[in-house]
Amino acid sequence: MTRWPERVDVRDVGPRDGLQNEAPVPIAARVGLIDALARTGLARIEAVSFVRADAIPAMAGAAEVMAAIERLPGVQYSALVPNPRGAQLALEADVDAIEVVVSASETHNRKNVRRSVADSIGGIAEITTLARSADDAVPVEGIISTAFGCPYEGDVAPERVAQLAGHLIDVGCTSVSFGDTTGMATPRRVHDLLDALEAARVDITTIGLHFHDTRGTALANVLTGLERRVVRFDASIGGLGGCPYAPGASGNAVTEDLVHMLHDMGIDTGVDLDALIDCARLAQKIVGRELPSAILRAGARTRTHPS
Amino acid sequence: MTRWPERVDVRDVGPRDGLQNEAPVPIAARVGLIDALARTGLARIEAVSFVRADAIPAMAGAAEVMAAIERLPGVQYSALVPNPRGAQLALEADVDAIEVVVSASETHNRKNVRRSVADSIGGIAEITTLARSADDAVPVEGIISTAFGCPYEGDVAPERVAQLAGHLIDVGCTSVSFGDTTGMATPRRVHDLLDALEAARVDITTIGLHFHDTRGTALANVLTGLERRVVRFDASIGGLGGCPYAPGASGNAVTEDLVHMLHDMGIDTGVDLDALIDCARLAQKIVGRELPSAILRAGARTRTHPS
Repeated sequence: MTRWPERVDVRDVGPRDGLQNEAPVPIAARVGLIDALARTGLARIEAVSFVRADAIPAMAGAAEVMAAIERLPGVQYSALVPNPRGAQLALEADVDAIEVVVSASETHNRKNVRRSVADSIGGIAEITTLARSADDAVPVEGIISTAFGCPYEGDVAPERVAQLAGHLIDVGCTSVSFGDTTGMATPRRVHDLLDALEAARVDITTIGLHFHDTRGTALANVLTGLERRVVRFDASIGGLGGCPYAPGASGNAVTEDLVHMLHDMGIDTGVDLDALIDCARLAQKIVGRELPSAILRAGARTRTHPS
Repeated sequence: MTRWPERVDVRDVGPRDGLQNEAPVPIAARVGLIDALARTGLARIEAVSFVRADAIPAMAGAAEVMAAIERLPGVQYSALVPNPRGAQLALEADVDAIEVVVSASETHNRKNVRRSVADSIGGIAEITTLARSADDAVPVEGIISTAFGCPYEGDVAPERVAQLAGHLIDVGCTSVSFGDTTGMATPRRVHDLLDALEAARVDITTIGLHFHDTRGTALANVLTGLERRVVRFDASIGGLGGCPYAPGASGNAVTEDLVHMLHDMGIDTGVDLDALIDCARLAQKIVGRELPSAILRAGARTRTHPS
């Protein structure tokens, strides 16, 4: 099978991107979820965010979470940081990787972090300097949000996103991923962005894609990425998170739905799907609401019924 | 854009395949839904099923429905029929097209219609003879269910599905479509089936694909079909229907989610998306439960928020 990559690297962002958009849950529950995810074979978990607790109460206690989790070898536990102060705290908490965010849309960036895109890039440069000077240099991933469209501005030019990716690499990001913050991507938009990245000489095999299923297209978008040789995808266990712009709508792509599809396509993820489904059940229990996971409801396609 | 077909033909199966799997609703509501769907620009609507009312109460009164709807020119109103008696009633009700079903899996066929696949093919031969002898010959589409897997037998060999498609054409079916009855298809399974059909010299541009979103893969499967030049797809308004094998799980692909994705990919459907969303709202009202439509919750991607 040479149609798609043989192996794909799935990052679960449920403990951070997911839970950040849910009502706060106890630190012990966050630790339990991270530990359960690590035992499924996932190689990367977005575990925490070092933000001000008054700004995002659901992410309070990031250092406590990092101190309490079992650090399985081979698993990268990352933290999102909004500024150099957050990066300092993340490094003190011994995270394996740092993530920084900037929006492709000026309006979204100002709404999200109250500064211009240029100012955000300046802050990211400080963060990468800090991360490089850590005892063991810590990788910094630049995440470009609204990369497939902005809920305020509408379409965002792929060339602008590609240019921004170049800026992030210029200021020291070790990788770049592209977030479909409000689920505006379709296979056409994915091709358009990848075309622009290739034109800008970005190596597609190093980037990450982060889709939301707000409009039902997450797995079609992943498929498009796979056909273009993208091998790094984000998803959220159980679909934790929702969409702040559309109450009741789905948010992040669902990790177990993604892994289920990849495995049936003959693509290795290193993840135990049954263990992942158990994690989705745990996530649902933690937040106390039904999550939008298809596999949680229907089971894997290999589950047959007695005739 | 030559990556995908320029135009795709979407059939809405909500009034039949959808409502058949919901609690019965009044005939006037079924008529209202069909008329609303016809006004969106959809060229084909699966309107009714001529089955015994005691077997499927939700489909009772098919002749009444057909007599009451407004027959818009250019719209094909079709009926599913289980046997020659049903076909006779459908022809008397002046349907534009007839659909017949046989399972690719022997076990599923016996569970579904209590006879062997061979006996089903025999019945279909009688139906096509009836349809050909109508005043205006009525086309008969053969639908192969469990074409991507069976909930009892598991995987179904694509070669067997292709062979069955050949049998359906041999006994007079004018087209064939392939149903993913319980949502077991993934892009890999779609490629495998299309490979087998091509090997059996079936013209891919004439077939229909009918996906369920039970495991989240419906639109990824459609994308795979598009890449292989399939141009006929089924979907159900609002996602009416559900999955009888997995309570609470999604069933049919959602028409408005499909059309939304196709339009953003530059693919013409002839359908007015806003009118379609109104239909989904109507469908939700008719069945009195929240339907699994993403676009109904989130709106089209072109809907921006005031900044």
